[in-house]
Amino acid sequence: MATPIDFWFSIGSLYTYLTVMRLPEVEARTGVSVRWRPFSVRTIMVEMDNVPARKPLKLAYSWRDVERRAQDYGFAFAARPPYPLKNSDLANRIATAGAAEGWCADYVRAAYRRWFIEHEEAGSEPSNTRCLQEIGQDAARVVARAQSDETGKSYEAATDEARRLGIFGVPTFATRGEIFWGDDRLEDAIRWQGSAAHKRD
Amino acid sequence: MATPIDFWFSIGSLYTYLTVMRLPEVEARTGVSVRWRPFSVRTIMVEMDNVPARKPLKLAYSWRDVERRAQDYGFAFAARPPYPLKNSDLANRIATAGAAEGWCADYVRAAYRRWFIEHEEAGSEPSNTRCLQEIGQDAARVVARAQSDETGKSYEAATDEARRLGIFGVPTFATRGEIFWGDDRLEDAIRWQGSAAHKRD
Repeated sequence: MATPIDFWFSIGSLYTYLTVMRLPEVEARTGVSVRWRPFSVRTIMVEMDNVPARKPLKLAYSWRDVERRAQDYGFAFAARPPYPLKNSDLANRIATAGAAEGWCADYVRAAYRRWFIEHEEAGSEPSNTRCLQEIGQDAARVVARAQSDETGKSYEAATDEARRLGIFGVPTFATRGEIFWGDDRLEDAIRWQGSAAHKRD
Repeated sequence: MATPIDFWFSIGSLYTYLTVMRLPEVEARTGVSVRWRPFSVRTIMVEMDNVPARKPLKLAYSWRDVERRAQDYGFAFAARPPYPLKNSDLANRIATAGAAEGWCADYVRAAYRRWFIEHEEAGSEPSNTRCLQEIGQDAARVVARAQSDETGKSYEAATDEARRLGIFGVPTFATRGEIFWGDDRLEDAIRWQGSAAHKRD
């Protein structure tokens, strides 16, 4: 069985929206499997002094770029959603709990859809309760688990692992010893994983 | 006749290598015409406090990314060339003189080839003399013109124009009121230019 590609992401990232939305089609078309790896990219970006809000020109470009690419992919993008998220850590901790319990992808898709389409901030109410209800989870139980020390430790451990891999932005795809940064590198990661020339296992 | 796409670049940029190398094939295949616009991206990046050398992890990733993409495109990339360039301004001033005289693309291709393949720094000797001889220009005359106030003013004016367009990195492609940043957005820029839905002139 093919090794899955690790999809490293943080809810709160603009470009991650594109990947979250198009992964089902890409997985169906290519047969790749993806492991969802939530972590705190913000922690690493602050360490590197790489904070998008301090580069307003580049951030404005990124919004336009995401909007154009969403339109090319055929996704809804009516108007810019609230940004930055006030509670991105809680959103990513819910995703971390979901990874342990097997519903991470479903939650993240619901959270991005509500954030980008309905303009309900991921990680805040009513998004948390609505997303979890939508995917058949008990919101009170999950939010408590997300806020637990156990989940906090998993979230930090994932961030440490991302740092060790050299990850500095999201989405990043990791496979066979290489990292590929950006939604627009997903196809490169899939080619790298499947390339006989690069097979290491 | 189709409006040309403005190709904004600075010699000294890693990713610009990819565009410079693949433009002849892209132009032949798509019929687009490109106007070469040298300017000082470094001036703008310093203003924004966006200096790649201060982000070593990201810079290391960029080298690997450029190497992988060069291999995918089928370009030579044996080992990493000297970086950063000591005399990038002179290289870009030569390109500016070339834009006025009609041989900008030829010079920039020669300079990138010598820099990336032969590891001769663009903007320094022996690159300047060899590149200019290669393309049939008198090296002493051109270097003097590149160092003139007239060329300096053109170079600054181009940088001011890039700043007004919202350009913050290279390569950037500008067409029909939009900018597209990155070698990997060249195809998006071409689609935008050709799209009937977006036609403004």
